[in-house]
Amino acid sequence: MNFIKNKPLILITNDDGDTAKGIEVLTSIMMKLGDVIVMAPDGPRSAQSNALTVTHPIRFKKLEEKEGLVRYSCTGTPTDCIKLALNEVVDRKPDLLVAGVNHGSNAAVNIIYSGTMGAVLEGCENGILSIGFSLTDHSAHADFSYFEPFISQIANIALINGLPRGVCLNVNAPTGKINGIRIARQCDGQWTKEFAKRVDPVGRSYFWLTGAFENYEPEATDTDEWALANGFISVVPSKIDLTAHETIETLKNWEF
Amino acid sequence: MNFIKNKPLILITNDDGDTAKGIEVLTSIMMKLGDVIVMAPDGPRSAQSNALTVTHPIRFKKLEEKEGLVRYSCTGTPTDCIKLALNEVVDRKPDLLVAGVNHGSNAAVNIIYSGTMGAVLEGCENGILSIGFSLTDHSAHADFSYFEPFISQIANIALINGLPRGVCLNVNAPTGKINGIRIARQCDGQWTKEFAKRVDPVGRSYFWLTGAFENYEPEATDTDEWALANGFISVVPSKIDLTAHETIETLKNWEF
Repeated sequence: MNFIKNKPLILITNDDGDTAKGIEVLTSIMMKLGDVIVMAPDGPRSAQSNALTVTHPIRFKKLEEKEGLVRYSCTGTPTDCIKLALNEVVDRKPDLLVAGVNHGSNAAVNIIYSGTMGAVLEGCENGILSIGFSLTDHSAHADFSYFEPFISQIANIALINGLPRGVCLNVNAPTGKINGIRIARQCDGQWTKEFAKRVDPVGRSYFWLTGAFENYEPEATDTDEWALANGFISVVPSKIDLTAHETIETLKNWEF
Repeated sequence: MNFIKNKPLILITNDDGDTAKGIEVLTSIMMKLGDVIVMAPDGPRSAQSNALTVTHPIRFKKLEEKEGLVRYSCTGTPTDCIKLALNEVVDRKPDLLVAGVNHGSNAAVNIIYSGTMGAVLEGCENGILSIGFSLTDHSAHADFSYFEPFISQIANIALINGLPRGVCLNVNAPTGKINGIRIARQCDGQWTKEFAKRVDPVGRSYFWLTGAFENYEPEATDTDEWALANGFISVVPSKIDLTAHETIETLKNWEF
């Protein structure tokens, strides 16, 4: 790779696979900001969270190399993609990691299931400025055009300002026209009625994951779900330290 | 199921699979505290994080039913196990969810990769008192005997005191004799040298996940890694709200 040293080095992945429209859009945008390396799963890996491949080995292969862009596909999960890229491909730490654009929302609790956000948390864990971009439209042909200028703007401003170690961004956009950007917090809520039960030809039950999201705080105006429901992009600073620091003193009073 | 109504209902899973020694140990301990339902993966699902099965349906089957215990196995991930049990098996919300005992540490950043802790976060998201237990020994024949009385004690005290919504416990134990319990925070650190590269008989490279954990704060005495290194059980209150609340005001000053 002959990357110009003073351009930002940008690492890209997703969880919808290397041929998804969302990652093509994201790659085009990022090529205007820096030199790009894509390491994406070779097929859909939605809802893979931070899963790692441990029971069998993984591989990657180069798909394309041209001025300012090298693209690889990988047989593993999104988090495997980032680990492989950082350990086996890049010759210096990327200045920015972006994942997506995800076809579907990663707002609220979806962050803990999302393969896209898993890759972002992995970049963050590795000390890289990391941002996940998601559009609330699962369609393979989703229209990212309203979101595109905001993706470029958010990445640019993040490169200028940086983030504290251990903090990354979870950026979600509504479909259609966008009213602006809201800095938000992760909304509390829960998936319900999560399985469709069916019966196979020999009479055995099987279950497809499905469900509906219930917002536990629909009145709150500072959540990502509120922003999206009101036509705004939500930007949630998210972290890899899961410690409930505010509960530590309570636990110290438990009488073990 | 005919569970006595005033005994706690306890849901158990793990990520090492339904035949692992760790889940047998945990089931025995929990049967002394309440009525137990086990829904465990039908094989190893280590490092599955909060992964969900979305590209194909899943199934579960009853393995055993006796006084105070029903055991099921499931074809999905640990998080699938919890979702299936809550949506399709239990007739009331469990009073306690426990996962493990994991063969291997889930301290520090391991929490974000762990299938065991994925299941615990899932229980927590569903408003259930949830605790993950892990022993820092990957061996299939690990000796859980020093840990066992503490598991019982911690579960009991948690049942008495409860936890705030959105907070669960990540409990890790050192091998051998135990000096006591430390309430701790998640240690900062990182996995390095993460892949073993090999070449197959036709000359193509493949990569096995491996690596070594580097503790970024070896001097700090309030972390889970310090507790484990000093012979203590670490109890880390952990949460499903990943928002970096302390960074929200900073981001509001960014000039979008």
